[in-house]
Amino acid sequence: MAGEIEFVDGGTITTPQGFMAGATYAGLKTFAEDKLDLCVLFSELPCAAAGVFTRSTVRSSTVTVNQERLAQGIPMRGLIVNAGIANTCVGEQGYIDAVEMTRLAALKTGAMPEEVLVCSTGIIGVELPMALIRDGLDQIELHGNGGPDMARAIMTTDTRPKEVAVAFEVDECQIHLGGIAKGSGMIHPNMATMLSFLATDAAVEPAFLQQCLSQVADETYNMLSVDGDSSTNDTVLVMANGAAHNHPISGGTMAGEAFMDALRQVCTHLTRELARDGEGASHLIVVEVDGAASTDDARLAAKTVASSNLVKSAVYGTDPNWGRLMMALGRSGAAAEEEKVDLFINGVCIMEAGKPIPFHRDAVVSLMKQPEVTFRLRLHLGEGEATAWGCDLTEEYVIINSAYTT
Amino acid sequence: MAGEIEFVDGGTITTPQGFMAGATYAGLKTFAEDKLDLCVLFSELPCAAAGVFTRSTVRSSTVTVNQERLAQGIPMRGLIVNAGIANTCVGEQGYIDAVEMTRLAALKTGAMPEEVLVCSTGIIGVELPMALIRDGLDQIELHGNGGPDMARAIMTTDTRPKEVAVAFEVDECQIHLGGIAKGSGMIHPNMATMLSFLATDAAVEPAFLQQCLSQVADETYNMLSVDGDSSTNDTVLVMANGAAHNHPISGGTMAGEAFMDALRQVCTHLTRELARDGEGASHLIVVEVDGAASTDDARLAAKTVASSNLVKSAVYGTDPNWGRLMMALGRSGAAAEEEKVDLFINGVCIMEAGKPIPFHRDAVVSLMKQPEVTFRLRLHLGEGEATAWGCDLTEEYVIINSAYTT
Repeated sequence: MAGEIEFVDGGTITTPQGFMAGATYAGLKTFAEDKLDLCVLFSELPCAAAGVFTRSTVRSSTVTVNQERLAQGIPMRGLIVNAGIANTCVGEQGYIDAVEMTRLAALKTGAMPEEVLVCSTGIIGVELPMALIRDGLDQIELHGNGGPDMARAIMTTDTRPKEVAVAFEVDECQIHLGGIAKGSGMIHPNMATMLSFLATDAAVEPAFLQQCLSQVADETYNMLSVDGDSSTNDTVLVMANGAAHNHPISGGTMAGEAFMDALRQVCTHLTRELARDGEGASHLIVVEVDGAASTDDARLAAKTVASSNLVKSAVYGTDPNWGRLMMALGRSGAAAEEEKVDLFINGVCIMEAGKPIPFHRDAVVSLMKQPEVTFRLRLHLGEGEATAWGCDLTEEYVIINSAYTT
Repeated sequence: MAGEIEFVDGGTITTPQGFMAGATYAGLKTFAEDKLDLCVLFSELPCAAAGVFTRSTVRSSTVTVNQERLAQGIPMRGLIVNAGIANTCVGEQGYIDAVEMTRLAALKTGAMPEEVLVCSTGIIGVELPMALIRDGLDQIELHGNGGPDMARAIMTTDTRPKEVAVAFEVDECQIHLGGIAKGSGMIHPNMATMLSFLATDAAVEPAFLQQCLSQVADETYNMLSVDGDSSTNDTVLVMANGAAHNHPISGGTMAGEAFMDALRQVCTHLTRELARDGEGASHLIVVEVDGAASTDDARLAAKTVASSNLVKSAVYGTDPNWGRLMMALGRSGAAAEEEKVDLFINGVCIMEAGKPIPFHRDAVVSLMKQPEVTFRLRLHLGEGEATAWGCDLTEEYVIINSAYTT
């Protein structure tokens, strides 16, 4: 039976038992102040593992390698990640280097190369300097408190690391689930990449682990938009090593529900942190849609509103501009009937049944000065619900993404 | 037999014979320097007419009225347009006021109300001040040189009017086709609306006229992106009055091809002008895709690249950032194989077969300082071709769309 889910103070990816991590500066990241740029995650115990990946047709070789590794159906042991260079658009060398990174990490940890996953983030069209990676790996020390260093080492234009862990009970076993993520803003000079890595000491049936990750990613990371652009390298990975000695968690059980819920809370937290730290962002935008004709419609509407440049600009200007919300809803493709729509900004109703209602504009403007702005759109057509996360569009975004070359 | 298509110096919507226009300041537009805000187009002769409209589910009552009028299958005579207030999200009053506008224009011109079309653009959620419109209409004088005034009267945040006309011969009759358009940037405080009105003195079979407009709009206006947001009021209308006394033009003929080609040239010109005058824009962006698996794929790829915030920011920064082009291509949904893609910036090849080639960076940066930046993406998969138009993303865009309320 599942207990309550509690957030762990200072929790990170190495909070679960049996995971070690370490990071170093290998010389790949030339643009950031926080210079760690190469890291390894390792589990003494073999792990069930699952992943979700970018849907882009132009993708990093690391994505290909991870998909091949997970398709083997064997337990995983480790993960190696570099930031600074994305290992994308470099022809066949990309695949060769990705495999070589797993081989080097395997040599270091005593795992087999095919038990190691690999991610890269950074500029594209540049080959990985494998000699630097080889030398860097020698300097890495793996330890049970390595999570915070790993969270910093995967950053690119992120202004702060993103990490979290929760604890909960399953069958009288204490379970930990932790994770880290890095920014969905772009990095100098080419790429936006969202990476998130999750670890748990629960034992989880592999097929159920993939099912949980796919479902939760659709509800969280896939509902995040910083600038509407998605990356060649986007990857979420989860590893479950069973160190908590619980009976392996499967679907259709209370334990399964508890695990799914914990995963949802961790991923929601990281998604919010990613949105809040969007490039140039001054506000976190949350768009909640209910009463949509279907879940798909709710997701479409929420994501379209959250990613509209006009809505994002209005939030930056603390402008309760319901016209732009209606415009974005209208073009989203989700079924909507204007005369049924209610709109709320931070809990204040500003439109009812498709017509604006008198509201105290100054009060709503004040509410919008809070760091988080929540729009709720009630469509009154069905049972579909979804939440999307985004950030406002500021001059700073334009400056970050245009000004560095001239 | 069709002759050459020539652009007419100073051409506008009243260049074709038998069209009159007039405009006035009725008091609806409180935010622009150019104060004309109400206008009428009228043809003595009855016109074949056709339209294409926003696909948004939240739409102005004017769109509904126009669709109903065109569905009657009877000739049209006139068009009334106001700028400043969009007549959207005002409940049932919107439809009543739209119909009343056509009635007032009919009274003025001697047409029947059901022979008049109507468009509005401006802020939403505000009812039209019909008394102002009634008074304004009295002041309007219709004349054969009224096109330039009409082009100004439909402007919102546009910095300049957009108008053009071409002349060509069909069956030894001289034909004129003229048009005007207004901005796809947003206006204070709520709306982006693209309106374009076209007139020709050719006689054209009504069904063929609609077919031409639908096809050409898909190739031009529907390939335009200023900020990815589309409007509740977007409308393109064409009226053909037959004053040139040609044999009515139909499909599958040389005359039909000539007419379609003229329409394409007029609409392409106006689309480019709309992109160039996008809010805050400093560059026109043209994205040409060839070798796509299909026309749909080519359009998807071209439009995704042209509307990517990252690509738009890179153009503003005159950054030959091919990584962002590949990213946008990859996420577009169009079939693409990285190892086949060639990329060109203003004619200079920067990537061949999926790998960057050495190019003289400073030279390409210089080329990108020109007011027009053309990206060509060759996919080498099939015969699909398309062009999309957009503009760069600047701090000015963010300022225009955020700063006016605080």
